[in-house]
Amino acid sequence: MFEKIALVGIGLIGSSLARVIRREHLARHIAIATRSPSTLKRAEELGLGDSYSTDLREAVRDADLVIVSVPVGSSAEVAEEIAPALKNGAILTDVGSTKASVIAQMQPFVPKGVHFIPGHPLAGTEKSGPDAGFAELFENRWCIFTPLPGTDPAALEKLSEFWRRCGSNIDTMDAEHHDMVLAIVSHLPHIIAYNIVGTADDLESVAKGEVIKYAASGFRDFTRLAASDPTMWRDVCLHNKDAILEMLARFSEDLASLQRAIRWGDGEKLFDLFTRTRGIRRSIIEAGQETAAPDFGRHGVEQGKGIGE
Amino acid sequence: MFEKIALVGIGLIGSSLARVIRREHLARHIAIATRSPSTLKRAEELGLGDSYSTDLREAVRDADLVIVSVPVGSSAEVAEEIAPALKNGAILTDVGSTKASVIAQMQPFVPKGVHFIPGHPLAGTEKSGPDAGFAELFENRWCIFTPLPGTDPAALEKLSEFWRRCGSNIDTMDAEHHDMVLAIVSHLPHIIAYNIVGTADDLESVAKGEVIKYAASGFRDFTRLAASDPTMWRDVCLHNKDAILEMLARFSEDLASLQRAIRWGDGEKLFDLFTRTRGIRRSIIEAGQETAAPDFGRHGVEQGKGIGE
Ligand SMILES: NC(=O)c1ccc[n+]([C@@H]2O[C@H](COP(=O)([O-])OP(=O)(O)OC[C@H]3O[C@@H](n4cnc5c(N)ncnc54)[C@H](OP(=O)(O)O)[C@@H]3O)[C@@H](O)[C@H]2O)c1
Ligand SMILES: NC(=O)c1ccc[n+]([C@@H]2O[C@H](COP(=O)([O-])OP(=O)(O)OC[C@H]3O[C@@H](n4cnc5c(N)ncnc54)[C@H](OP(=O)(O)O)[C@@H]3O)[C@@H](O)[C@H]2O)c1
Repeated sequence: MFEKIALVGIGLIGSSLARVIRREHLARHIAIATRSPSTLKRAEELGLGDSYSTDLREAVRDADLVIVSVPVGSSAEVAEEIAPALKNGAILTDVGSTKASVIAQMQPFVPKGVHFIPGHPLAGTEKSGPDAGFAELFENRWCIFTPLPGTDPAALEKLSEFWRRCGSNIDTMDAEHHDMVLAIVSHLPHIIAYNIVGTADDLESVAKGEVIKYAASGFRDFTRLAASDPTMWRDVCLHNKDAILEMLARFSEDLASLQRAIRWGDGEKLFDLFTRTRGIRRSIIEAGQETAAPDFGRHGVEQGKGIGE
Repeated sequence: MFEKIALVGIGLIGSSLARVIRREHLARHIAIATRSPSTLKRAEELGLGDSYSTDLREAVRDADLVIVSVPVGSSAEVAEEIAPALKNGAILTDVGSTKASVIAQMQPFVPKGVHFIPGHPLAGTEKSGPDAGFAELFENRWCIFTPLPGTDPAALEKLSEFWRRCGSNIDTMDAEHHDMVLAIVSHLPHIIAYNIVGTADDLESVAKGEVIKYAASGFRDFTRLAASDPTMWRDVCLHNKDAILEMLARFSEDLASLQRAIRWGDGEKLFDLFTRTRGIRRSIIEAGQETAAPDFGRHGVEQGKGIGE
């Protein structure tokens, strides 16, 4: 599909891309660039690419497609660094979890003649780094583009085809709406998960050993999200502030009302809320975005044949 | 182990018990009792027991072990109903998710000569009813007893051995401490999950279809807990009110502080919290209470061999 693809950042997302690009033969040459020599070395040991460099400019030179996969707070820095070396006619995209901020950071540096198309694959796990990636990560997941006005349709179609070959389904929306949608489906859940795990960690009435021992009763579901990469999530919080604060305000308001129902013993109100929320899971399973296996299918994983345990 | 075991309530927990009792030959006779004829009929179709009745008294008559597995709010009603038919020397236990309230509800009805030992297996899924149970549910899970002062050690040991044969590990603590521990490891997580799913359901800025479509980005982790049985969870909220309200207050306080850090762009504070919370998951995995597979091993389940999908 492409002569040369440059991957800037080779963590969970970048290394998953490297693996699927190789498997699907989407480029003749994969150039890998990252900040630290140690991550670069690991990528090389894993054989993720065809050339390796900590010089981002060198990596993107002559590339037809450049994919930036770094924490969103580093977008400006990376864009400024690579801009002078970008080839005329190249496609430049990213995978950042917030879009308005990434656009504001990168666009000023994009040279004329380069097609900048912001993107976000809704695919990830709680792990990070080049060892965490796998070629199937994007399969049956959405990839959202938030193209700027005047985007070249041919370039957009070419990038869409690339992501489809990685296994994804494509969606397009404006950056502000993306940031609002992600605030509720991803950012708020992560923040709440971090918060509840923090609360448990601070208690004196219940020892930490007890929280760990009995975590299977519900608590452990939150610990997965709360084990996500701190740099990535700090950056998300700082770069999608308004939408996140709005969702947090809604959540807190609703929680105050639920708290009141518990305090006053309003069983009917509790029952109504607890019934309404069931439907959503059913819809998510029907939409093919979740497994119906009880406990997320943990019992299958735990009893042998398990992946990664 | 027992001549006759009576199971009062044959939902997720009761039917899992029936299955493991059969598999492990823990009773010569399994008597099943429940409130509604339709649930009883289903239990009979599934062949879960040796006798079936909606007359709870008849079921418990002559039983050496009676296990009550009904929503905690029905404990008093069930205890009053079965009390006159309980055999002298029988062990009476329950599986309710709150303990101080269950003891307060049941103990007044327990006849002298009957060994009442409150219990709580920390094992469950988001499903309910007799079809949802499976014999392996209790394997490698904790069962907590909150015995009353003066409990017969022989009866306690016999019941412990029963649960060990079901695959569980035994723990003992007082009822108040149990309720505090469970408030943080189970009740608060469920309440928060219900709340966030409710918040998402109410938004106007993001359509419900979008929430469902993009749920894999984090939100879906909460939907599992929020799909749990409404009756059970209403009862838990009403019957462990004080401990739950205390945990909710802590959680809200912490959330306000996190919100502030986001509003003021305090990246260091965010980074610190997000780093601290990672450790807990590692400990839970090391304690054998969780799978280390990314995404709870969903990828394994989703790609064929799947359980229940
Ligand atoms: N994880 C998810 O679930 C997920 C899902 C969708 C989108 N995303 C987005 O994908 C992006 C990458 O996330 P990830 O999970 O792949 O992170 P990751 O595993 O932590 O990897 C981040 C990579 O970016 C590199 N990097 C960081 N700062 C850099 C800089 N200033 N210049 C050059 N390289 C730099 C790191 O390099 P060194 O190791 O060499 O420092 C590393 O190779 C983020 O924007 C995130 O929002 C993540
Ligand atoms: N689910 C979990 O994850 C979990 C984990 C640990 C402990 N627990 C505790 O286990 C208990 C049962 O939960 P479950 O998940 O098995 O619930 P479930 O699947 O909803 O089953 C509840 C059973 O109780 C019966 N029942 C309800 N009210 C009754 C009454 N007044 N008299 C007689 N039978 C009555 C129901 O009968 P009908 O269908 O005939 O009305 C049904 O057979 C609860 O106290 C819960 O707190 C649950």
